[in-house]
Amino acid sequence: MTRKPLQAVVFDWAGTVIDHGSLAPMGVFVKAFAQFGVEITIDEARGPMGMAKRDHIATLMRHPRIAAAWAKQHGAAPGEADIDKVYAVFVPMNVEVVTDYAEMIDGVVPTIDRLRARGLKIGSTTGYTREIMARVLPLAAKQGYAPDNLVCAGDLPAGRPTPLMMYRTFLDLDVWPASSVVKVDDTEVGIAEGLNAGCWTIGIAVTGNVFGLSADDTYDLDEETFEDMRYAAYAKLTRAGAHYVIDSVAEIESVLDDIEGRLARGERP
Amino acid sequence: MTRKPLQAVVFDWAGTVIDHGSLAPMGVFVKAFAQFGVEITIDEARGPMGMAKRDHIATLMRHPRIAAAWAKQHGAAPGEADIDKVYAVFVPMNVEVVTDYAEMIDGVVPTIDRLRARGLKIGSTTGYTREIMARVLPLAAKQGYAPDNLVCAGDLPAGRPTPLMMYRTFLDLDVWPASSVVKVDDTEVGIAEGLNAGCWTIGIAVTGNVFGLSADDTYDLDEETFEDMRYAAYAKLTRAGAHYVIDSVAEIESVLDDIEGRLARGERP
Amino acid sequence: MTRKPLQAVVFDWAGTVIDHGSLAPMGVFVKAFAQFGVEITIDEARGPMGMAKRDHIATLMRHPRIAAAWAKQHGAAPGEADIDKVYAVFVPMNVEVVTDYAEMIDGVVPTIDRLRARGLKIGSTTGYTREIMARVLPLAAKQGYAPDNLVCAGDLPAGRPTPLMMYRTFLDLDVWPASSVVKVDDTEVGIAEGLNAGCWTIGIAVTGNVFGLSADDTYDLDEETFEDMRYAAYAKLTRAGAHYVIDSVAEIESVLDDIEGRLARGERP
Amino acid sequence: MTRKPLQAVVFDWAGTVIDHGSLAPMGVFVKAFAQFGVEITIDEARGPMGMAKRDHIATLMRHPRIAAAWAKQHGAAPGEADIDKVYAVFVPMNVEVVTDYAEMIDGVVPTIDRLRARGLKIGSTTGYTREIMARVLPLAAKQGYAPDNLVCAGDLPAGRPTPLMMYRTFLDLDVWPASSVVKVDDTEVGIAEGLNAGCWTIGIAVTGNVFGLSADDTYDLDEETFEDMRYAAYAKLTRAGAHYVIDSVAEIESVLDDIEGRLARGERP
Amino acid sequence: MTRKPLQAVVFDWAGTVIDHGSLAPMGVFVKAFAQFGVEITIDEARGPMGMAKRDHIATLMRHPRIAAAWAKQHGAAPGEADIDKVYAVFVPMNVEVVTDYAEMIDGVVPTIDRLRARGLKIGSTTGYTREIMARVLPLAAKQGYAPDNLVCAGDLPAGRPTPLMMYRTFLDLDVWPASSVVKVDDTEVGIAEGLNAGCWTIGIAVTGNVFGLSADDTYDLDEETFEDMRYAAYAKLTRAGAHYVIDSVAEIESVLDDIEGRLARGERP
Amino acid sequence: MTRKPLQAVVFDWAGTVIDHGSLAPMGVFVKAFAQFGVEITIDEARGPMGMAKRDHIATLMRHPRIAAAWAKQHGAAPGEADIDKVYAVFVPMNVEVVTDYAEMIDGVVPTIDRLRARGLKIGSTTGYTREIMARVLPLAAKQGYAPDNLVCAGDLPAGRPTPLMMYRTFLDLDVWPASSVVKVDDTEVGIAEGLNAGCWTIGIAVTGNVFGLSADDTYDLDEETFEDMRYAAYAKLTRAGAHYVIDSVAEIESVLDDIEGRLARGERP
Repeated sequence: MTRKPLQAVVFDWAGTVIDHGSLAPMGVFVKAFAQFGVEITIDEARGPMGMAKRDHIATLMRHPRIAAAWAKQHGAAPGEADIDKVYAVFVPMNVEVVTDYAEMIDGVVPTIDRLRARGLKIGSTTGYTREIMARVLPLAAKQGYAPDNLVCAGDLPAGRPTPLMMYRTFLDLDVWPASSVVKVDDTEVGIAEGLNAGCWTIGIAVTGNVFGLSADDTYDLDEETFEDMRYAAYAKLTRAGAHYVIDSVAEIESVLDDIEGRLARGERP
Repeated sequence: MTRKPLQAVVFDWAGTVIDHGSLAPMGVFVKAFAQFGVEITIDEARGPMGMAKRDHIATLMRHPRIAAAWAKQHGAAPGEADIDKVYAVFVPMNVEVVTDYAEMIDGVVPTIDRLRARGLKIGSTTGYTREIMARVLPLAAKQGYAPDNLVCAGDLPAGRPTPLMMYRTFLDLDVWPASSVVKVDDTEVGIAEGLNAGCWTIGIAVTGNVFGLSADDTYDLDEETFEDMRYAAYAKLTRAGAHYVIDSVAEIESVLDDIEGRLARGERP
Repeated sequence: MTRKPLQAVVFDWAGTVIDHGSLAPMGVFVKAFAQFGVEITIDEARGPMGMAKRDHIATLMRHPRIAAAWAKQHGAAPGEADIDKVYAVFVPMNVEVVTDYAEMIDGVVPTIDRLRARGLKIGSTTGYTREIMARVLPLAAKQGYAPDNLVCAGDLPAGRPTPLMMYRTFLDLDVWPASSVVKVDDTEVGIAEGLNAGCWTIGIAVTGNVFGLSADDTYDLDEETFEDMRYAAYAKLTRAGAHYVIDSVAEIESVLDDIEGRLARGERP
Repeated sequence: MTRKPLQAVVFDWAGTVIDHGSLAPMGVFVKAFAQFGVEITIDEARGPMGMAKRDHIATLMRHPRIAAAWAKQHGAAPGEADIDKVYAVFVPMNVEVVTDYAEMIDGVVPTIDRLRARGLKIGSTTGYTREIMARVLPLAAKQGYAPDNLVCAGDLPAGRPTPLMMYRTFLDLDVWPASSVVKVDDTEVGIAEGLNAGCWTIGIAVTGNVFGLSADDTYDLDEETFEDMRYAAYAKLTRAGAHYVIDSVAEIESVLDDIEGRLARGERP
Repeated sequence: MTRKPLQAVVFDWAGTVIDHGSLAPMGVFVKAFAQFGVEITIDEARGPMGMAKRDHIATLMRHPRIAAAWAKQHGAAPGEADIDKVYAVFVPMNVEVVTDYAEMIDGVVPTIDRLRARGLKIGSTTGYTREIMARVLPLAAKQGYAPDNLVCAGDLPAGRPTPLMMYRTFLDLDVWPASSVVKVDDTEVGIAEGLNAGCWTIGIAVTGNVFGLSADDTYDLDEETFEDMRYAAYAKLTRAGAHYVIDSVAEIESVLDDIEGRLARGERP
Repeated sequence: MTRKPLQAVVFDWAGTVIDHGSLAPMGVFVKAFAQFGVEITIDEARGPMGMAKRDHIATLMRHPRIAAAWAKQHGAAPGEADIDKVYAVFVPMNVEVVTDYAEMIDGVVPTIDRLRARGLKIGSTTGYTREIMARVLPLAAKQGYAPDNLVCAGDLPAGRPTPLMMYRTFLDLDVWPASSVVKVDDTEVGIAEGLNAGCWTIGIAVTGNVFGLSADDTYDLDEETFEDMRYAAYAKLTRAGAHYVIDSVAEIESVLDDIEGRLARGERP
């Protein structure tokens, strides 16, 4: 029972294949907290990006400054019930906005077509719920992207950084061992998900959450600012343990060559 | 998010925790083939033990001597349709007989109780179908054994030696990384399942399929025969790659101590 | 600049080379707490064995039952000042008693003489203070044991399980790299000290703190009790990550042969 | 007791943080030998750079050409007493000159400030004696550089390439395990010191001893000569086993990111 | 018995040190098959490059399209006897043509001279027969290249990708262990030869068989085509498991520095 | 091109498969030196056992006591010419005596028959010359032992501890990679030969040179002496780096099971 050494690539969604800059949820977090009289910044909102959204809100509420602001406004530190309340406000807002941010990132579709031609299966995991993905999937398909599986936040008892969504993907795609799979993600928590699963990991620096700008805004940057921001994004994903960091999914092919070579000489992630 | 280094032990069923000697299906294979005018021996029947039963029958039919006998009887080499026919005969026979072989192996129940007391989760995978296990589970429970999950042949696209049933177990028990899990099995294909999943593996030599005798028949062996058979069983499971081989599940605790120690000093399976 | 692959063995004191059962401090802890109206058992006292004594008292005071008993007696949970008070009572008592427990464990002196003959340096670290060791050293020397260095609790900013006392020993003995050194200890925290330093580690099961009996009391055990206690002591030190566990220092030589062999084929701890 | 994966960076002094080109001792070696009627070149003087100065002189005296020149002049091969004599002449000369070469290398101070802001401790070891460093330390402090410790040649029984000065640093800074520490050095013997200690190592190619030019002289090189010399310096430090080689300390931050990532995925130096 | 960590570099011949583009045998394969009424393309002919020539012809004959064309022409699938017939035609043609393709690749001779100056032995293995090499060797020698040994196809029971020619080279050069040797080759099967022998491997991308053009034709490429072909050649050799890929042998020295450094810190291929 | 993970076992001759105690050459060394007026003991003669015989004599002559005795007798330290003279005397004596010591060790022949039945090739290397082996081979064959190859001292530029005889064996048997081969030897230099080749190694303790007694003399030992000598023999071969040590070749099968298991889970020697 011999198997090909490299079998599948598993992509995150927002910031990795769609939604350049992972912008969709940011404003929604800000608005949702605002409804409870607590101001948070876009940068604060972005901090725990990659997590399931309820966990994301919970993490924001543990943030010292936000927790203090909440306590001041409501007279008590935020608890589980408060998380539920903010989440209840957040979900419909997010569903509303997500279809505005479903454009495929430049170069992703033809690149993934070439990966399939190479015999690779295409998996996907996301911090979005199934309700949201029900709106996103057809939009992605219309643009030419239809992965072989989808695991959403809430499908499983625990989300990132646990590797449970990756194990689910191994089952969906019938791929193993873990060293035959590559995880591609623009967030630190998504890199951790891949490492905890025993997979190779590739960080996406420029089109994703760490960089945090739309394609147009990125294009408009002066070169020095671009290089500084790019350097910082590489640093963050590198420190998170990513085996490789690249600008965007469009640059993935030579990295996969390198991984195939490492497998050929017996290295494991 | 720190986790305990050792989190779960996943046991096979027949020959590992119930049915000393893994005797249940052997006679059934012989009888099923006999219905098609093909004689096979108990030893031949035992060969692919550990596989899902349809795969098991398919493997027997690829056995040169059996394939030849089949061809002689039926005028053609056996094909997919023939596998289906034999399997159709096998299944109800097996369901019939399995409750006669559901006695817990000596020492298993108190040992597993102590593992739980140690904070370990107890998983289970099996080559039996869910239909069969529906009969076995209540009998095991009555004797004091109720694992935290159960994955059966047919639940997933592929069985042993693929690690898919183990990945399913990781999800059911919420355990990771793979190095925090131990697979315990009396068959070579079950050891391969554990290795392919990236787990520690323990082979069960004397109470299982390789030894192939009931508790009484084992007890009645003269010492030299016992030692020779024991040696052969250890050899087979050792060559299959088991990290450890023991007589029975009752001896597992000091092996788990050793695995905990190896994890403590940074070793991985 | 080639160096011998194996250069030094570093021994703990109580329970490893002197004081069979590591009995000296146990009663003292009990008596010291009693002075503050808090009863503790010998077994509770033994828990954090291997640590520097002030840390040991601090750990006992964090023990839920003891903390509760303290709070009940004194009207408040124990704080830093309380640790200092108990320690102030403990120290002179311990100095008093330690010379009664300074007998070399059977077989240690001739074994260490053979290690020296083999070209090995002999280091030592201890959870005792320098004041106590000032009384113990001449008694050990009179019995034939004089290690090449001594690092005491309080000599360095932090004690076990940090490896600082081992680094100090590397300097004292001029030995390196860390893989050329073996740490021998009867406590879990001493095994951790050796692992954190990057050394090979050997646990001492029967003469030490985990077993916890004098040589005479050990001798008087019936065989079954002895085997059960021995098994439990091996389990504890094995789980702590010790590369090897032996009954007493007298059995160390074949373990050192094995370590030399592993170094010869390029293995590292 | 969890610790940050990356805790400290340990810098050499001359050629790494001060004295671009490591020029201070070179002329002094030449002058010291000249006093004994033996001519040596700057390049010969530079050979054993990184060693403690008495070892450095001893190594020069074992150099075949220099040994022969000495023998011709003095009628006998140089011995221990001769080393002492040259060293006696060298020391006061070196003390004299060293303050002229204590300027911080461009970019070092702000870089190290950022490392501290990142939570890293800053260690230092040197081949200079404590007498010399007593003059250098205040000059460095005035320019903004005050490391958390200092280990000098002569403080310990043996110098580079032994790791003893690194072990001393582990104690001074309370940092462990060895894999949490990075050694930065411009000499081969300093890289060996770091490797022998079990640390990550970074070679400094352009500002250091291998390149061997002042900042101004480096700036004045035509591009081809600069690239050839740079290539040769990288080659030398790479062959010595440095995990990374960079132009100067100012480029260290992205290397530390990479090391953090390797630690995050379980790699060790 | 200490040995230098890096002792020898073993070069393939065509496409690596002589015959830019590995052009010699290509036309000959085409012509040989044409004599049997079967048309093959240059690209098809190039496929199994690196193998011994009889194996090469056998592999071509197993190619589905060529096997079909042969069957159509000769009324039966090609067998062992057919391989012999084509080989019998091929050999004298190849001998004829090979001296026209014996020019050393630019930069190889001075580079190898510098490797010798560095103390390295120079080995060579080839897919050519000894008869052919008898013509090539004096031509190479005249241009300044005379390796310390030569192993030809047919000297040993099996050729690439087995490591037998490498083992023969270890004997010829008296070099060991395998990690002290580097294999340099322009074909995938030659990289596999090196990996199977336990050596470091370097792929040659631009001057070799994968690129497949003469020096002049390479020079005439427009930059974009050159970069695309170069990228594809790097990808192919990287996926084959080469530790390093470079344009030509002239770039080998810094790679050898890197290998020496890895050996210095204890890494093995 | 998949290969079986375990392919060949390579046996030393004297002390491993024939000549219990490796007694043949011992008396001859003593007699040869005696002819030059220099007395040496059996124990001294045995020291370098496993080497080619001329190297063995050279090593004896470098032994301080023997060198001194030689110098006293001949007025000068022994040189190359003296080695040649002693060797010239030694060779015919050794040829004479070797047929008296060619009895197969108990249990070897049936064991090796079982290894062949398991599909393993049987290689052999020896410190004897081809002249001597020409006498030994037919005697072994008559007793049922005929290995698949033979490499003798003098066949290759260098003997043990270099791995050259092992590389020659890889070629003779067409076996690779090195991890698929096991070296079995009763001498430390033979274990080193196997390790240098990258093979698994098994030391033979009781029937070989380290123990140094005939089968009868071994049998006559009282139990305590036997255990002491056995312990010492195990220690010596273990320290030399042997992966396993066993009493005699007859015990090899379960060790090979273990090696197969380690290969199955991806371990390498």
